[in-house]
Amino acid sequence: MNRSELVAHLHRKKSFLCVGLDTDITRIPKHLLGEKDPVFAFNKAIIDATLEHCISYKINTAFYESRGIPGWESLGKTLDYIPKTHFTIADAKRGDIGNTSAQYARTFFETFPFDSVTVAPYMGEDSIRPFLEYENKWTIVLGLTSNAGSRDFQQLVLSDNHQEKRVYETVLEKVSRWGSPSNLMFVVGATQASDLTHIRTLLPDHFLLVPGVGAQGGSLQEVAEYGLNKDGGLLVNASRAIIFAGGGEDFAAKANQVAKDYHTEMKSFLPE
Amino acid sequence: MNRSELVAHLHRKKSFLCVGLDTDITRIPKHLLGEKDPVFAFNKAIIDATLEHCISYKINTAFYESRGIPGWESLGKTLDYIPKTHFTIADAKRGDIGNTSAQYARTFFETFPFDSVTVAPYMGEDSIRPFLEYENKWTIVLGLTSNAGSRDFQQLVLSDNHQEKRVYETVLEKVSRWGSPSNLMFVVGATQASDLTHIRTLLPDHFLLVPGVGAQGGSLQEVAEYGLNKDGGLLVNASRAIIFAGGGEDFAAKANQVAKDYHTEMKSFLPE
Repeated sequence: MNRSELVAHLHRKKSFLCVGLDTDITRIPKHLLGEKDPVFAFNKAIIDATLEHCISYKINTAFYESRGIPGWESLGKTLDYIPKTHFTIADAKRGDIGNTSAQYARTFFETFPFDSVTVAPYMGEDSIRPFLEYENKWTIVLGLTSNAGSRDFQQLVLSDNHQEKRVYETVLEKVSRWGSPSNLMFVVGATQASDLTHIRTLLPDHFLLVPGVGAQGGSLQEVAEYGLNKDGGLLVNASRAIIFAGGGEDFAAKANQVAKDYHTEMKSFLPE
Repeated sequence: MNRSELVAHLHRKKSFLCVGLDTDITRIPKHLLGEKDPVFAFNKAIIDATLEHCISYKINTAFYESRGIPGWESLGKTLDYIPKTHFTIADAKRGDIGNTSAQYARTFFETFPFDSVTVAPYMGEDSIRPFLEYENKWTIVLGLTSNAGSRDFQQLVLSDNHQEKRVYETVLEKVSRWGSPSNLMFVVGATQASDLTHIRTLLPDHFLLVPGVGAQGGSLQEVAEYGLNKDGGLLVNASRAIIFAGGGEDFAAKANQVAKDYHTEMKSFLPE
């Protein structure tokens, strides 16, 4: 998917919601466990129930990999089921030396044809370049994450020509020079929404993938206020808050309601 | 595998060689392509040919994932085929928020029962803790990698109470406090062997996984000189230099010869 398609969908629907399919098989409703592929049955119902309110789906690969080959089968079927209108994210946080990153790019852009994949920046430029070589595919690089551990390394201060600059700011600045706002996005944790104003000065045009709204406690209003740009420029992800909103036979209806609530709030932040 | 078993194997065999199974299906000998699972057939022959010279095998997951489900099947069969005497590494470079890292730990410690997995440190403590909770399993954290991109972030200087300290040094120091030399190792790139002396002052007891000898150009002699400690404390990996030493029907014999050469050189660095 290219940028103009993504932006058009965002404005048409007045939504910047991404639904995170962190489908933990131990948490899906009991009545689905008799299905041939319970995880796919769950995802299918969640997608049907949320499609009208979101513009993107994020598949957290860890919850599929941990089940081995059946998990990858569920992942493949889920990806196939998501309509082409919706931007797909492999939340895989890969990254290795160049020839290995090229294999990861093939995994998530060809073998499983996602629109995008999340990538960890620690190994630097040659670990990220192979992902950027694909046309109409997106590389979503970790900037500032939403977890407590973001303080351990991302927020340390660098001694850079007497300018005080944090590790994550240098990541945002350097990585943004390796691609463009048409093939690069960044993960920016919503639990630190006050940092968004500053991040928008560094990255006025890029899409930001914002996890951590909902179960992780970030405020949607703050994210919208400080994060939206002229093209929208946000994908706000909610996973558990939507997909596990209900635990019984009405799980899809409950997910629909929570997604609708996010959508309603998002509409209020986007101008006519 | 626990530390004393690993150390005993290293000293018994006088080898600290790890063979990297970066099995690119486009590079394996043509005569294997008619096999039902050419990658497994290749790996099986490589393992048979190198077993006597190495103490560890490292499976680079990217080369398996990129083939989708057949790739994971090759990976599973390869892991099953490696004898329990040899330390197994899932070179997967995972890392995410706690509940997701727990799924990755399950993937590589339970679903595919490796002895260890490589982990990227960018997301901090809660992204690494779930891996450390497994008994007799090892977490191998990226410290200083062997690629050019290691200069982009790992080698930046932090302003830490007027002490000059690089990002990767802080990673080594902080992460080493979260585990012990019995469940933590670090990746240290061999192409910067001169840094090894310094790293050994920070981490006198930990095993270091050293990639980048061979195809990536590091010197085995320098690594041994600066990296060995009283328990050995090194796993030196060679991938392409061994597994693709030959490209024809004699590929296994060629791999055996290169592994033997490494082994012979390693014996000279280990005291009687």
